[in-house]
Amino acid sequence: MGYRAPQADIRFALDHVGQLGDLLGLASFDHLDTGLSGEMITEAARFVENVIAPTNRAGDTAGVRFDGRDVRVPEAFGAAYRQFSGAGWGAVGYPAEFGGAGAPLTLNIAIREMVVSGNLAFSMCPFLAGGVAAVLLRYGTDDQRERYLPALASGEWSGTMDITEPQAGSDVGACTTHAERTADGGYLIRGQKIFISYGDHDLTEQILHLVLARLPDGPPGSKGLSLFLVPKLLLNPDGSLGPRNDVTVLGVEHKLGLHGAPTCVLAYGEQGRGAVGELVGQEHQGIQAMFTMMNDARLGVGLQGLALAELACQRAVTHARERIQGVPAGTPAGARAAIIEHPDVRRMIMTMTASIAAMRAVVYATARAIDLAEQSGDADARAAWRLRADLLTPTCKAWCTDLGVELISTAMQVFGGMSFIEETGIAQVYRDARITPIYEGTNGIQAIDLAARKLLGDNGGAARDYLRSASATATELGRQDPDLGTALAAGVRVLDQATTLMLSRDQQRRALLATATPYQRLFGTVLGASSLAAGVVHAHAAGAGPETLAKPIALLRFYLNTVLPQVHGLLPQVAIGDEGLYSLTAGQLTA
Amino acid sequence: MGYRAPQADIRFALDHVGQLGDLLGLASFDHLDTGLSGEMITEAARFVENVIAPTNRAGDTAGVRFDGRDVRVPEAFGAAYRQFSGAGWGAVGYPAEFGGAGAPLTLNIAIREMVVSGNLAFSMCPFLAGGVAAVLLRYGTDDQRERYLPALASGEWSGTMDITEPQAGSDVGACTTHAERTADGGYLIRGQKIFISYGDHDLTEQILHLVLARLPDGPPGSKGLSLFLVPKLLLNPDGSLGPRNDVTVLGVEHKLGLHGAPTCVLAYGEQGRGAVGELVGQEHQGIQAMFTMMNDARLGVGLQGLALAELACQRAVTHARERIQGVPAGTPAGARAAIIEHPDVRRMIMTMTASIAAMRAVVYATARAIDLAEQSGDADARAAWRLRADLLTPTCKAWCTDLGVELISTAMQVFGGMSFIEETGIAQVYRDARITPIYEGTNGIQAIDLAARKLLGDNGGAARDYLRSASATATELGRQDPDLGTALAAGVRVLDQATTLMLSRDQQRRALLATATPYQRLFGTVLGASSLAAGVVHAHAAGAGPETLAKPIALLRFYLNTVLPQVHGLLPQVAIGDEGLYSLTAGQLTA
Repeated sequence: MGYRAPQADIRFALDHVGQLGDLLGLASFDHLDTGLSGEMITEAARFVENVIAPTNRAGDTAGVRFDGRDVRVPEAFGAAYRQFSGAGWGAVGYPAEFGGAGAPLTLNIAIREMVVSGNLAFSMCPFLAGGVAAVLLRYGTDDQRERYLPALASGEWSGTMDITEPQAGSDVGACTTHAERTADGGYLIRGQKIFISYGDHDLTEQILHLVLARLPDGPPGSKGLSLFLVPKLLLNPDGSLGPRNDVTVLGVEHKLGLHGAPTCVLAYGEQGRGAVGELVGQEHQGIQAMFTMMNDARLGVGLQGLALAELACQRAVTHARERIQGVPAGTPAGARAAIIEHPDVRRMIMTMTASIAAMRAVVYATARAIDLAEQSGDADARAAWRLRADLLTPTCKAWCTDLGVELISTAMQVFGGMSFIEETGIAQVYRDARITPIYEGTNGIQAIDLAARKLLGDNGGAARDYLRSASATATELGRQDPDLGTALAAGVRVLDQATTLMLSRDQQRRALLATATPYQRLFGTVLGASSLAAGVVHAHAAGAGPETLAKPIALLRFYLNTVLPQVHGLLPQVAIGDEGLYSLTAGQLTA
Repeated sequence: MGYRAPQADIRFALDHVGQLGDLLGLASFDHLDTGLSGEMITEAARFVENVIAPTNRAGDTAGVRFDGRDVRVPEAFGAAYRQFSGAGWGAVGYPAEFGGAGAPLTLNIAIREMVVSGNLAFSMCPFLAGGVAAVLLRYGTDDQRERYLPALASGEWSGTMDITEPQAGSDVGACTTHAERTADGGYLIRGQKIFISYGDHDLTEQILHLVLARLPDGPPGSKGLSLFLVPKLLLNPDGSLGPRNDVTVLGVEHKLGLHGAPTCVLAYGEQGRGAVGELVGQEHQGIQAMFTMMNDARLGVGLQGLALAELACQRAVTHARERIQGVPAGTPAGARAAIIEHPDVRRMIMTMTASIAAMRAVVYATARAIDLAEQSGDADARAAWRLRADLLTPTCKAWCTDLGVELISTAMQVFGGMSFIEETGIAQVYRDARITPIYEGTNGIQAIDLAARKLLGDNGGAARDYLRSASATATELGRQDPDLGTALAAGVRVLDQATTLMLSRDQQRRALLATATPYQRLFGTVLGASSLAAGVVHAHAAGAGPETLAKPIALLRFYLNTVLPQVHGLLPQVAIGDEGLYSLTAGQLTA
């Protein structure tokens, strides 16, 4: 089964949630217009359907190979990667001066959504390179940008993020990889990192590793870390590729999913010389740079939750339309019918479809906030959008990936027994998706980020601002359809109550952290509703007709009626705080 | 990582939810007492920990092999199976006259829980044989029972259930496998079946297939099917094993999980002769016999949800006690600590542990109802318990498996990135468990069974009876602890409201079916609370001390405070009926 890009759904989210037309009016995007962006979507859809998607199952089946020195990705990825890079799909988000299209993140996210649905394992290579590029753009020197960005934009080189160590997972500050200064002003890195996606592979000759390491005078904890660029191949003075750096692949993981994407253990200095690195940004300031990269990456992982749910859902719909079983309730003739006509199956499909529309709205709304935080012509507006973007990012990541995994499980249920057979293909989506609530900061970490940093750290400012805008959306929606407006307002009120509870816990940190996850789930559930509603309101105001509005309105109504009410089950979980949480000892909890 | 049988938790459920002491007082169980049953639990725990559990990962890694004719299971299973059968663990539920221990189902379930946690793929072989035996006990002739039951009880022979065909999944009546009568009063079967667990293997020489097929004069639909026993090897007149029957293994599936358990495509009559079968029960009455078997099997699958969640949870607890990361909130010294001390991790572990206690209570309460339905000395009591057992069984299956899959996903989250690495072992549990909401009737089918048959078909009689008993439990619990009683009563009231809504839909079948799944989830959530509470109330009345009661009460409190409130999010999903469910066409739902 392939993938069909849901172009109408993507365009609705792009036009009316991301409000791309408005973004393209910003000075930074003078070189683009909606006609051009529309062509990019159409072209990308065709490219993903024809070139990327066919590599997905092949990549899962073939897996990666490691010969003890080098890693090879599935053969099908090579040709796809050359076409992908050749057509410039990896360069959409790069500035024009480095060979990119200079597109808003929101437009880039729409294209990435399709690529991720087409093949998540494949997509990680170019999108990790994009993350490295984003760090260099913001923290690199002019010289670094000139040396590295064109090759990253063209896809000639790729990049990785090397953060985790066996003893330093969520606790990044426990990192022991260290760096020393050399006489010529350079650095040598020694240590090991694990879970390095595309840490080695044969899609590009050169790989740029961004490595967190501690200098001898770096204070303990995460704030003593510096960021280094460690190339796989040393660069000759003329910029050409030289011999291998002292970076060794110690192993490749055998994973539940993402079989096509190598996950490596890398050692620096294993051969005795030390891995040559160059500093990115300031010494001891590495964690800030890494956070920038991770924040971008978190939006990207939220997008993965959406994109895989979309893939699973469309396969489930196709199956449910083809699979004939039983006689649906209310069929007078008693004829057997496709299972999509059975109420319980239709419930699953409507729940998936409406939830996916809400997730897409959240992802594109977050991307828009980031675009405006960076490109708005007004400094106050940039500051306000930065707060909004920072508020939404962890929830975009956690809610879209938790819900994504759940919806993919729902899609499996639609397939019944066939879902358990690997040939059907849906099991791969289930396996691949399970990492998304974990990597780039587990969803527990996202919840703590939301509660402790984005909420309490800001005294609730950005959250209150969001709640006001969601209330305003409910009011506008109510003018269009009173029932919908009332339903949304009810959800927003529950989030308001929950937010007040959380803000009251600045002296009860344990209660705050104990309820961060249900609070974030509640937040995401309301954010999905308000973001989708904002799109409907915008489209309505823009004079969109029923051919554009009928589906989003039907999905919004279903979401408000059957998904949003979950908030009533979540609020008590927030209210309870940490009561009873430590009523049993660790020993009592052990079998 | 191995498995440690949670003996204290199992004994609590057995003594105070299953009320085994009371069951052993029934005439049928004169040969057993609580001392003996206690020894059986202790022995089974040791056996599973030492012999069964070590085969779990080995079975997943080795998988099954098919040489085009015969199937071989992982090598480690052979020795374990011989020890298992030799020690009589497969025979616990068989009547003494056929070589079994004649134990109540409730006790047998406790032993099975451990075996399933130890290795689900392995456990399916003996427990499927047990299902075949249950059908023969109830529907077989004396001759059939004498010929087959001793060899099934001893584990010398095994058995399968052959129901599904490519075009007949949930829609069993679409079955096209057919049977013809032979001149000598026998039957020949021709057709194909899929998804046959242990359809062929090398643990036993003989395999007894129970096959649903249609006689030439069988009416269309499920009510025209007959049940046949089709042996792998023909039996000589003296009962010894003869040549192969015309049963061919066409293939073995490559599955997401359960790699150690062969899932076969079987053909009958492929070699031209037709597969020799004998009738079980009456002609055209096969579906009733199969439903009996499936009802038993559904309790068994609910048990699998529980047993795998237990396995995953205890691994997560072990990991969370060993893994040192970060500084928990409220630690004055700021020392790094095991992640089980972090509030968000502790929340996951308490949620798993409390939910598992509730699931265990539901499974053991259902087993007790079945025991009383069959063995109570009073005919009215038997009838009442039969209604209760029939009411609980579909929810036991669906709720325990849906929740089981979710909790295993939670356990993965506790492991973080390591969960995605197959060597860690938790991913196998995640893969294995995903079939449980599907097989033996998808959970959608269970929900429809609950709503349409068990609820409406009975005019709410059994449901009202359950609600009364749950209210009474809340009252008694309230005498022990007013807050707990109030919390349980609130949950029961929500279920009462939802039940009234469902019962009002006898003329709105589409609304009934559209909301069957959220209704069943709500039912299970309350049933978990009331069953666990009933155990606490019983233990308290029996004078149990804090060493027995402290943990169940802490878990009940946590469940009532943080899991049960989900009902407030579910009730609106029940109330909405089928509103908006068909607001989009199948075409509009297609990308």
